[in-house]
Amino acid sequence: MSGCPFGHGGEVSGGAAGGAPNESRQTSGFSRRGLLSIAGIGGAGAVAGLAAGFLGHDAVAATPAGATAPSTDAAVVPFFGDYQAGITTPAQDRLHMAAFDVTTEDRKDLVKLLRDWTAAAEAMTAGKPTGETGAVDGPYNAPPEDTGEALDLAAAHLTLTFGFGAGLFEKDGKARFGLEGRRPEALIDLPHFPGDDLQPGRTGGDIVIQACADDPQVAVHAIRNLARIGFGKVRVRWSQLGFGRTSSTSRAQATPRNLFGFKDGTNNLKVEDNSLLNDHVWVAPGDRAGEQWMAGGSYLVARRIQMHIETWDRTSLREQEGLIGRTKGTGAPLSGGDEFTAPDFKLAGRDGTPLVPLDSHMRLAHPDQNDGVRMLRRGYNFTDGSDGLGHLDAGLFFIAFVKDPRTHYVPMQLALAKGDTLSVDYLKHTGSGLFAVPPGIKQGGFIGEGLFS
Amino acid sequence: MSGCPFGHGGEVSGGAAGGAPNESRQTSGFSRRGLLSIAGIGGAGAVAGLAAGFLGHDAVAATPAGATAPSTDAAVVPFFGDYQAGITTPAQDRLHMAAFDVTTEDRKDLVKLLRDWTAAAEAMTAGKPTGETGAVDGPYNAPPEDTGEALDLAAAHLTLTFGFGAGLFEKDGKARFGLEGRRPEALIDLPHFPGDDLQPGRTGGDIVIQACADDPQVAVHAIRNLARIGFGKVRVRWSQLGFGRTSSTSRAQATPRNLFGFKDGTNNLKVEDNSLLNDHVWVAPGDRAGEQWMAGGSYLVARRIQMHIETWDRTSLREQEGLIGRTKGTGAPLSGGDEFTAPDFKLAGRDGTPLVPLDSHMRLAHPDQNDGVRMLRRGYNFTDGSDGLGHLDAGLFFIAFVKDPRTHYVPMQLALAKGDTLSVDYLKHTGSGLFAVPPGIKQGGFIGEGLFS
Repeated sequence: MSGCPFGHGGEVSGGAAGGAPNESRQTSGFSRRGLLSIAGIGGAGAVAGLAAGFLGHDAVAATPAGATAPSTDAAVVPFFGDYQAGITTPAQDRLHMAAFDVTTEDRKDLVKLLRDWTAAAEAMTAGKPTGETGAVDGPYNAPPEDTGEALDLAAAHLTLTFGFGAGLFEKDGKARFGLEGRRPEALIDLPHFPGDDLQPGRTGGDIVIQACADDPQVAVHAIRNLARIGFGKVRVRWSQLGFGRTSSTSRAQATPRNLFGFKDGTNNLKVEDNSLLNDHVWVAPGDRAGEQWMAGGSYLVARRIQMHIETWDRTSLREQEGLIGRTKGTGAPLSGGDEFTAPDFKLAGRDGTPLVPLDSHMRLAHPDQNDGVRMLRRGYNFTDGSDGLGHLDAGLFFIAFVKDPRTHYVPMQLALAKGDTLSVDYLKHTGSGLFAVPPGIKQGGFIGEGLFS
Repeated sequence: MSGCPFGHGGEVSGGAAGGAPNESRQTSGFSRRGLLSIAGIGGAGAVAGLAAGFLGHDAVAATPAGATAPSTDAAVVPFFGDYQAGITTPAQDRLHMAAFDVTTEDRKDLVKLLRDWTAAAEAMTAGKPTGETGAVDGPYNAPPEDTGEALDLAAAHLTLTFGFGAGLFEKDGKARFGLEGRRPEALIDLPHFPGDDLQPGRTGGDIVIQACADDPQVAVHAIRNLARIGFGKVRVRWSQLGFGRTSSTSRAQATPRNLFGFKDGTNNLKVEDNSLLNDHVWVAPGDRAGEQWMAGGSYLVARRIQMHIETWDRTSLREQEGLIGRTKGTGAPLSGGDEFTAPDFKLAGRDGTPLVPLDSHMRLAHPDQNDGVRMLRRGYNFTDGSDGLGHLDAGLFFIAFVKDPRTHYVPMQLALAKGDTLSVDYLKHTGSGLFAVPPGIKQGGFIGEGLFS
């Protein structure tokens, strides 16, 4: 890799939309697909002069100049901003999340990696490759600086969201990277919750990266290239694909369904809830010395929740709805109304018992039962092969962003793990992570810069 | 489950497109989403009369009658036909494939399952639920007959393709289900190929089902419901998600890229290649007694091919292109031209060696080097978490349909496993399956009917 992996970006003019576009994918003006179309044109023109069997490497010379890259693209979510993207961004349909162990102990190496990741993330979220690909540029005798599988694809609303685990701050009781006293108090070690069956290979990690996109290949490409750039400094600890979002984060989105077949996240915090986001999601500038770098950040809770879907599928509709507290069809509370009607937890049926059962998931997870705390959920459905026992290994990869997990996650999860029949009988938590998500990155800055300055 | 799971289909009129549509999903006239929209309307109207806390179950009564289901839908691939769908169907972007072990030994049970699966597959490929969902119909005290997570989604070009493994015909040397002498000769036990590292939990299976769709949730929903319907008769042996197709099966599709970043399947057989399909994909009516039921069928080869992507990513572009035999940018053969130019295996460069290296994958896999045999490939990129060694577990889930694996797969794979530097150094086969794919299903018939009559 050369020092500045994006030095060639300016030499390529975008906008050529030739070739056979894939009907299900969006075009963008200055996109990887644009690059490739140019390569196609250049490659064909270069055939006559072929000498050593490689095409396309001179294609830039054959590119008509003059077109300039448009500054915005409908499928591009800006990487820079006050907050990191991928939190209140309207939830994309596909996820690839990976947690890394940092293997270097050198602070300079770590900062360089965060700078390199910042540059690569900016490029990829804009639909550009992470460097010279070999399609239109780049040295022939070195590895390409982008792995190429997203060359023909648009930006696809890719967002990349970075978080730091406790292990970045200390290992075996000793501070790392000169970060003595910098671990935020809210970045706790999560307690063991009743029923937890956490697998070490799906739990923890020093750094997490959440890649969300409309196209899974774009999300996988992003994680794979960040892992590639981190070679020798980080190792993949776990990685998780999600195929269907289970929350909306904007009122413009319809509520999706989880693998229990129910609408999920109806009461989720949404990007339109500005003051609620400040109350529940964004970390406020605090007084505590050494924590100012987290202002505008958040905490990411990740839980891999395996669902016993075969047992669920043999449960009556009556029982399913009672366990959830909502109807399966419309998602309305069992106390009546439609999906967005506030539940009436006191309303009782003819037999005198509440219509929303006392042990229902919706009741136990509701803000009214949890000191009014709210979360911004951003989870995904997953299916990872089979469980080796004749069933699909399927469930919900829970992701939530909260201001402080001590108030906004742990109490509720304790209540659910103890009292929620759904959690006790139908769910198993097999992976877990808690990460401090720094604020947004400014142009010229890098991920988590405040922690290192 | 009631005897006829689709008895209520005719009572629901389609076409209502209310609600908040998900912008990325297509609507269909008589779809699951249509059903749900009706449920929404009915549910809201029924609130006033709410007594026992369940909504929507009476919604059919509130549904305006008169609309009739359209017979075609742009996102519906017909389930019935001369050949099974999902072979020459233009390759959809997402895959969920599962192999099942049959646990019953009762022929009647097996035939009933194949009939039930036929009915469910017909419904789901048309964008309908597999039975009463509880959204608008169905008994309240029984499990829903559809799990519900695709209720709001369109048909999404779902295809379901069924195949039979050797284990359906015999187990421990003894025939099963009265199928003595019915195992096709071409349904061989695949030989051990050099370098194979097959995991039992990813290999074999008595029945395979390939679900392909534009939307992964639709594909997963289909496999999950077929598994649900098979409860007590079959167990999931393995299941595999694929997020990006690696082949085109129609000239209208652009060639996609695999996780090596190269275009894959340029020379794939396509639906437009009618006579070639007869020569290489479809089983012809044969003379051998007991095998006539396979006429119009095919053989499905599935291979889970793990890629050593980290090693690959540190390989120079020159070496990568030499290993593949094509340029990375345009996918043109190293002998020149563009992507679809026929390679010239004799053309040598200035140093006298062939421009398409002797050990390149494209040369060794090319029909010219394999007695002219062709395959219809239909594989997918996959990423399954991490390998536990600090890397992503990623690769290509190879799927091919051939007329006879003895002539159309085994010789080529032997050549690749021995002589292809790409296969030897960068690939590891970790799962494998070979399945006899019966011909298409006629209305009123069932999957593999010819085998049981």
